[in-house]
Amino acid sequence: MADDKKLVQEITPMSEDFAQWYTDIVKKAELCDYTSVKGCMVIKPAGYAIWEAIQADLDRRFKATGVQNCYMPLFIPEGLLQKEKDHVEGFAPEVAWVTQGGLEPLQERMCVRPTSETLFCDYYAKTVQSYRDLPQLLNQWCSVVRWEKTTRPFLRSREFLWQEGHTVHATAEEAQARTEMMLNVYADFCEEDLAIPVVRGQKTDKEKFAGAIATYTIESLMHDGKALQSGTSHNFGDGFARAFGMQFTDKDNTLKYMHQTSWGMTTRMIGAIIMVHGDDSGLKLPPHIAPTQVIVIPIQMNKEGVVEKAAELKDRLAAAGIRVKLDDSDRRPGFKFADCEMRGIPLRVELGPKDIAAGQCVLVRRDTREKIVCPLSELEKTAADLLETIQKDMYDRAKEHRDSHTYDAQTLDEMKQIVAEHPGFIRAMWCGDRACEDKIKEEAGITSRCIPFHQVKVGEKCVCCGKPASKMLYWGVAY
Amino acid sequence: MADDKKLVQEITPMSEDFAQWYTDIVKKAELCDYTSVKGCMVIKPAGYAIWEAIQADLDRRFKATGVQNCYMPLFIPEGLLQKEKDHVEGFAPEVAWVTQGGLEPLQERMCVRPTSETLFCDYYAKTVQSYRDLPQLLNQWCSVVRWEKTTRPFLRSREFLWQEGHTVHATAEEAQARTEMMLNVYADFCEEDLAIPVVRGQKTDKEKFAGAIATYTIESLMHDGKALQSGTSHNFGDGFARAFGMQFTDKDNTLKYMHQTSWGMTTRMIGAIIMVHGDDSGLKLPPHIAPTQVIVIPIQMNKEGVVEKAAELKDRLAAAGIRVKLDDSDRRPGFKFADCEMRGIPLRVELGPKDIAAGQCVLVRRDTREKIVCPLSELEKTAADLLETIQKDMYDRAKEHRDSHTYDAQTLDEMKQIVAEHPGFIRAMWCGDRACEDKIKEEAGITSRCIPFHQVKVGEKCVCCGKPASKMLYWGVAY
Repeated sequence: MADDKKLVQEITPMSEDFAQWYTDIVKKAELCDYTSVKGCMVIKPAGYAIWEAIQADLDRRFKATGVQNCYMPLFIPEGLLQKEKDHVEGFAPEVAWVTQGGLEPLQERMCVRPTSETLFCDYYAKTVQSYRDLPQLLNQWCSVVRWEKTTRPFLRSREFLWQEGHTVHATAEEAQARTEMMLNVYADFCEEDLAIPVVRGQKTDKEKFAGAIATYTIESLMHDGKALQSGTSHNFGDGFARAFGMQFTDKDNTLKYMHQTSWGMTTRMIGAIIMVHGDDSGLKLPPHIAPTQVIVIPIQMNKEGVVEKAAELKDRLAAAGIRVKLDDSDRRPGFKFADCEMRGIPLRVELGPKDIAAGQCVLVRRDTREKIVCPLSELEKTAADLLETIQKDMYDRAKEHRDSHTYDAQTLDEMKQIVAEHPGFIRAMWCGDRACEDKIKEEAGITSRCIPFHQVKVGEKCVCCGKPASKMLYWGVAY
Repeated sequence: MADDKKLVQEITPMSEDFAQWYTDIVKKAELCDYTSVKGCMVIKPAGYAIWEAIQADLDRRFKATGVQNCYMPLFIPEGLLQKEKDHVEGFAPEVAWVTQGGLEPLQERMCVRPTSETLFCDYYAKTVQSYRDLPQLLNQWCSVVRWEKTTRPFLRSREFLWQEGHTVHATAEEAQARTEMMLNVYADFCEEDLAIPVVRGQKTDKEKFAGAIATYTIESLMHDGKALQSGTSHNFGDGFARAFGMQFTDKDNTLKYMHQTSWGMTTRMIGAIIMVHGDDSGLKLPPHIAPTQVIVIPIQMNKEGVVEKAAELKDRLAAAGIRVKLDDSDRRPGFKFADCEMRGIPLRVELGPKDIAAGQCVLVRRDTREKIVCPLSELEKTAADLLETIQKDMYDRAKEHRDSHTYDAQTLDEMKQIVAEHPGFIRAMWCGDRACEDKIKEEAGITSRCIPFHQVKVGEKCVCCGKPASKMLYWGVAY
């Protein structure tokens, strides 16, 4: 038991120090690691496999709405970045600058893309001529760089992986519809595949993206009661179009400006999976995106026929379309159990000589540790059903946690008290005034998360100034 | 006909100006385009879809050999790049330097990765402790930057997309076996999926990678008789391991240096597909990697039932696992034919009212323009068989072209004459002396491509100095 205990003991309990618990899981589940490059991570195979699963699923959802992938340059010349005033103000302070190419200094310095609006604008301005060329629905998978001062694995790093979609449309209505459509794609993906419930809503003007007329967001709640902005979708109106001269000839033969959107989701979702589902034994991966859904562990491997039978079960599960691995390494079963729990594999199959004699195996759920004795003849169906049950139960538990950590406040004092006593989402009425938003942030130490689409009237007056208020806002301490 | 002719007329004939023909195809097939960032391209959806198909296929082949994907930082601190002497000499003159992060100058400048050996070395030095941790078989898909002075779409650009595999092993034998294995993965991929025959061989010391003890290569021949280095696999021995302190405790409990390989393939393969298979009507995509394998084009779309029947055929082909599209746009059939030829779609299905009445459709091969009348009941099988036939025939034609443009030379004068008269591969015996290699390059204007694994004795003496020679080398003018 020495080894097994050691493996478990090295994780700080969540209740003791959530931040350290998070770092321990990232490290022990071998998801990512620090490098000699300050603020940049290496995403290790176990972490990258999760990203590949996220990519495959999101990419399929994007393409189903007509989106095509492309690739834009890594660099943005300074002059291009500066074309849209709000945008450059938002990003210039946090970009990395390339000033030398080969042995010569550059005539114009270039930043490493922090996001690619300006490159897509430049491209659309050149390539779109007529309403027949619209809409353009492009996306790219790439890395971006933002020179953050403090960094945390997956949640905030100087370089991170993401996708960025950029579309242009003939009308404002179409652009608005696409902005909302992509927010819903993100929300469905989070809820159906990551088993993470989200609040869908709009950012306040204070919190919207640099250069957007409207930013929509999905907000999720981590186990420690902090909020995580999980995906955003922006409507730019024709602001960039005017700055970049993005015009097209419409059906009525007049020149018009294009209407534009962008939307992105990043590797921080791996952090969300850890912080929504994990426990003191490690990671818990939702079956839909788990790179390995089932692990088969033979017990008493030295007994004749055990390894062979375990391999046979693995092959049967694989043939049934389940992502499955066999752990026939020479480590002891107790170590293997702790190891696959740490890595968050949703379901394990234990098989020993007695099981074989009884024509059965034992299935153990990662999420509840429940053990299910299963006749070998029913393995595929039982495993497939259990994976769906686990997926659903993980979502339900996360939603139950989120709902039970969502509080309503009538006054600023109540807000402060909730922040001090129960970390979670706070719902409160707002008059719409930027001054109140600023004051709440300053005094309660929380930020507005969104104006939810699903409005619930939690009072009559603004939580801050007491004036009549018709909008309900979500607030929280954010990552 | 005006439009159709226009579409075709805009391509420069291959025989008139090969370089311009290439550029025209890249442009008219909408594969990529220039940007405001000097030397960097945008890869447009039609080009990126080919890259996605290449990625999917190569990635599957890599994973079948046990390789896992990961992601390393975009930046390399100068000190890290300088650790291996040959490597830094090879790359330092052509890297882009980041000197400022946010509003502050960096204490140590960093280059944008031109390749990631140094980052993987740093990672392996930290994470591998024991022989139990070996081998490590990692790969990443990313972009790299090399500050080239002259650039050409796909073939040479300042930023390009690629994969780079980096492995470490306990023994020299294992590293050598992996180096050769990955070269064969590339060669099989090129021949089986891209329909491009390759010569497998070893680079001379003069041409090997900066820091490698041996570089292996696959070389292919373009339609204009120029050679293209299409994939390389390097054995580093323990050179980097010594420079980076990459040691592990072996079974015998002694500290040993790791043995290392790396191997890469890039978006330049899209250029190879164009230059090996294309013709004066445009691109020709090998069916195995064509994003769209079949296009269905209804004729006389205004006649009742034609579009519906065409859509039905599309659905049937899709259900049979064929990547298929329907062109029911309001353009004329002649335009559609020219357009899908330009885009290189391997097979088109034409369907008009008379065909429907006769219970048939017409299949047209892109590679030969052959027309095949096919009973509608046999569509799936006929189309699937034809795609395989096209794949095989494209390979055979490319091999026939390659073989008929491979020449043997006995003397340096013969080499010069061949270069002047018949562009292609030149095979010649070599004494092994660097001086002869240098002289041939200087006087004949060609570079050694490789020492092929499959040695054929084309003479007795070195083509340059006349001394006895036992090695046969491939030479050519390279992209």
